[in-house]
Amino acid sequence: MTEPAVVADLTALLPAGAVTVDPEVMAAFSRDHSERPLPGMPLALVRPASTADVQAVLRVASTHTIPVVVRGAGSGLSGGSTAVDGCLILSVDRMREVRVDAAARVVHAQPGALNAEVKAAAAAQGLWYPPDPASYEFCSIGGNVATNAGGLCCVKYGVTTDYVLGMTVVLADGRALTLGGDRVKDAAGLSLTKLFVGSEGTLGVITEVTLRLIPAPERPASLVATFAEVDAAVQAVLQISASLRPAMLEFMDRTTIGAVEDLTHMGLDRDAAAMLIVQSDAPGDQAAAELNRIERICLDAGATECVLTDDPDDGEAFVAARRMAVPAVEMKGSMLLEDAGVALPRLGDLVRGIQRISSDRGVVIALIAHAGDGNTHPMLVFDRADPDSFARAQQAFDDIMALTISLGGTISGEHGIGRLKQPWLERQLGQDAMALTQTIKAALDPRGILNPGVIVR
Amino acid sequence: MTEPAVVADLTALLPAGAVTVDPEVMAAFSRDHSERPLPGMPLALVRPASTADVQAVLRVASTHTIPVVVRGAGSGLSGGSTAVDGCLILSVDRMREVRVDAAARVVHAQPGALNAEVKAAAAAQGLWYPPDPASYEFCSIGGNVATNAGGLCCVKYGVTTDYVLGMTVVLADGRALTLGGDRVKDAAGLSLTKLFVGSEGTLGVITEVTLRLIPAPERPASLVATFAEVDAAVQAVLQISASLRPAMLEFMDRTTIGAVEDLTHMGLDRDAAAMLIVQSDAPGDQAAAELNRIERICLDAGATECVLTDDPDDGEAFVAARRMAVPAVEMKGSMLLEDAGVALPRLGDLVRGIQRISSDRGVVIALIAHAGDGNTHPMLVFDRADPDSFARAQQAFDDIMALTISLGGTISGEHGIGRLKQPWLERQLGQDAMALTQTIKAALDPRGILNPGVIVR
Repeated sequence: MTEPAVVADLTALLPAGAVTVDPEVMAAFSRDHSERPLPGMPLALVRPASTADVQAVLRVASTHTIPVVVRGAGSGLSGGSTAVDGCLILSVDRMREVRVDAAARVVHAQPGALNAEVKAAAAAQGLWYPPDPASYEFCSIGGNVATNAGGLCCVKYGVTTDYVLGMTVVLADGRALTLGGDRVKDAAGLSLTKLFVGSEGTLGVITEVTLRLIPAPERPASLVATFAEVDAAVQAVLQISASLRPAMLEFMDRTTIGAVEDLTHMGLDRDAAAMLIVQSDAPGDQAAAELNRIERICLDAGATECVLTDDPDDGEAFVAARRMAVPAVEMKGSMLLEDAGVALPRLGDLVRGIQRISSDRGVVIALIAHAGDGNTHPMLVFDRADPDSFARAQQAFDDIMALTISLGGTISGEHGIGRLKQPWLERQLGQDAMALTQTIKAALDPRGILNPGVIVR
Repeated sequence: MTEPAVVADLTALLPAGAVTVDPEVMAAFSRDHSERPLPGMPLALVRPASTADVQAVLRVASTHTIPVVVRGAGSGLSGGSTAVDGCLILSVDRMREVRVDAAARVVHAQPGALNAEVKAAAAAQGLWYPPDPASYEFCSIGGNVATNAGGLCCVKYGVTTDYVLGMTVVLADGRALTLGGDRVKDAAGLSLTKLFVGSEGTLGVITEVTLRLIPAPERPASLVATFAEVDAAVQAVLQISASLRPAMLEFMDRTTIGAVEDLTHMGLDRDAAAMLIVQSDAPGDQAAAELNRIERICLDAGATECVLTDDPDDGEAFVAARRMAVPAVEMKGSMLLEDAGVALPRLGDLVRGIQRISSDRGVVIALIAHAGDGNTHPMLVFDRADPDSFARAQQAFDDIMALTISLGGTISGEHGIGRLKQPWLERQLGQDAMALTQTIKAALDPRGILNPGVIVR
């Protein structure tokens, strides 16, 4: 079948307006927020409205062995939804229904719904969907599930997979499966639901998810601690984690603090080497009690200043500073964003190693971290107009991945591997785990049409 | 190769005493705590001491296509470690090392270590491993991971899979993989670790696990609420779950209460239709505050009596009553134990349906439930000496599975499918999910040597 015939076929099968070949429209759907790789030229953009539509697309793609690149909101950071030549971009942006079942404490969501829309629907019923990527206002829940996304509250409340109870997923050949369901516990059969979480569109296309909700906790109290030495801040993180369970434990380094202050003029201490932003949502006066203990730990570790507030709005301002970190650093130049995670005792080694790489490669690296989880986000700043600057940033990016693997860590804590980090994955997993990955991929997608180049080559 | 030659081969490869063909010894390792199916006659019992030993066993088994039935402590309830004819029983009871890394907040455990041993090792460092099957004192951590075991605290703290960060697993062909690791978050590659959790020995043999620990919470305050009507207790469960997160929310019916009272003479109310046992581990005086709210909900729902204590030892006595439920009911006759789970709004339908089945089949059914998770354990009492009684119990057992599936529930909340419930699995999962299960099984274990008859036929 010729390419135009495939497009005609899809156009006939799908609702009006669901298939586009306009190059400008396709270009807008051809990449995510990552710098690399550059997108290829898609065959068409398809925007299904239902599971049945997705099945129709995959039947056509399977019959003609056409690659399918699934896309949520395009906020990914690893090139997981970057178009490849001749692919169908399958965008789920028209599948945005969200339905809360308060009695069952679950939400059923289509994949194109934004994380914030899921949170809002839950909140309207006094319930809470915890996972909160910094991008929660513009990332899709389907993308969250596909990458096993994390966020700021994960240190206490866990990551996306901990909330996925079930899903509808369309396999490469177009069959739609319903996995799991409304029940909170399920030990019947293989953990198929969990296998699809984090599979980044390589094993199937998720068309609906069932997510566990919990009663909303109280609004948190907050603490900001400032340190003159990065090591002292890291020591405080280890001490806090040993005995307490804060609802947030975030780290920002001096470069990041300066960039945020440049943007917001909120009065952050530019001289500080590091800042921790900590929240407690313990009930009643226990939040203040928990933060008092954390303040004591920070001061003992060498904090120069601690500011504690039980006013939720004041606390939200601190968190907003943290959420502004990426846009603020992006004002300084173009950015490569990493997602390196290590066991907590290795956090200091990772942070010091990143500082060394910054100095060795002559690359500005601003560092933020979900510190309580050992999950760092080095932000490498470069000048797009200067090929040498870009090359040095790319070298530093690879250096950080090599360092992370050498520390027994992971090159992705929450963003996924995508196409950007695929060449590095085997170095982390080892040959045998990579072979097993390929075995599973081949079993579920024998023609290799689902998001080729992601996770496996 | 003849069978004696295989045994000689294994004997040469493994440490002294690791291979046994003594029928009496093998018989003791040939079944778990389930009634069905009856065990077959194994070829040999092997008791490896290391990952390398397990690799040697699987290489031999793979070469000669010999079935391998993996066994932890034999406390399973679904026939997952029941010997099949001609199999090797691979018992991990000699692999019991437990090593806590307090700084990383993880424990590394060999699969034969008991859940209680893991908990104790963590507690010695001020840390906590939450999952707590009622059998925690005599079940193995390897079995917990293989079945994705639950327990009483899961209503707040989640199930086994939520704590598994990594593992060493030996594949059917003898290759050993290390998956995941000490880091709390990991989104690199497919969720292979999660796939092996709950796979019941059908995809590989787990030889070490890395489990996440959390700081120990405060000792809980406890509430026991007594109800004259089962429906009132169920309504209280739904109301509590809608707004609060107790650390335990257990249900016992009249039959169970009577059996426990017969055994313990602790003064339980035999006239009560149902009892809820609730705990809160909120910090400070918030535990009492939370239980006061729960007491109010119970009274509004129609509780006839509520007893609240913030003395942890008094509370432990209530929980002990709940933990005595299975042995107490076992005093009344032989028992078939179910593991039916539904979405919370269906809990009342399930409980009433079970009562109807009890009456229709003339089978005494005592009911306990991890009520906050919608996970029930109907205990079907029968007289082993009376074939008609056993037949009726088996019919009632199947009726409850059919009912559960008709309510959109699961035939296993936490015990696994094993051989006992394998014939029922496709009715729950559907044909396509079952086919996918078989595809994955065939890809990982092409010769079908790993725990044949479990999950897949």
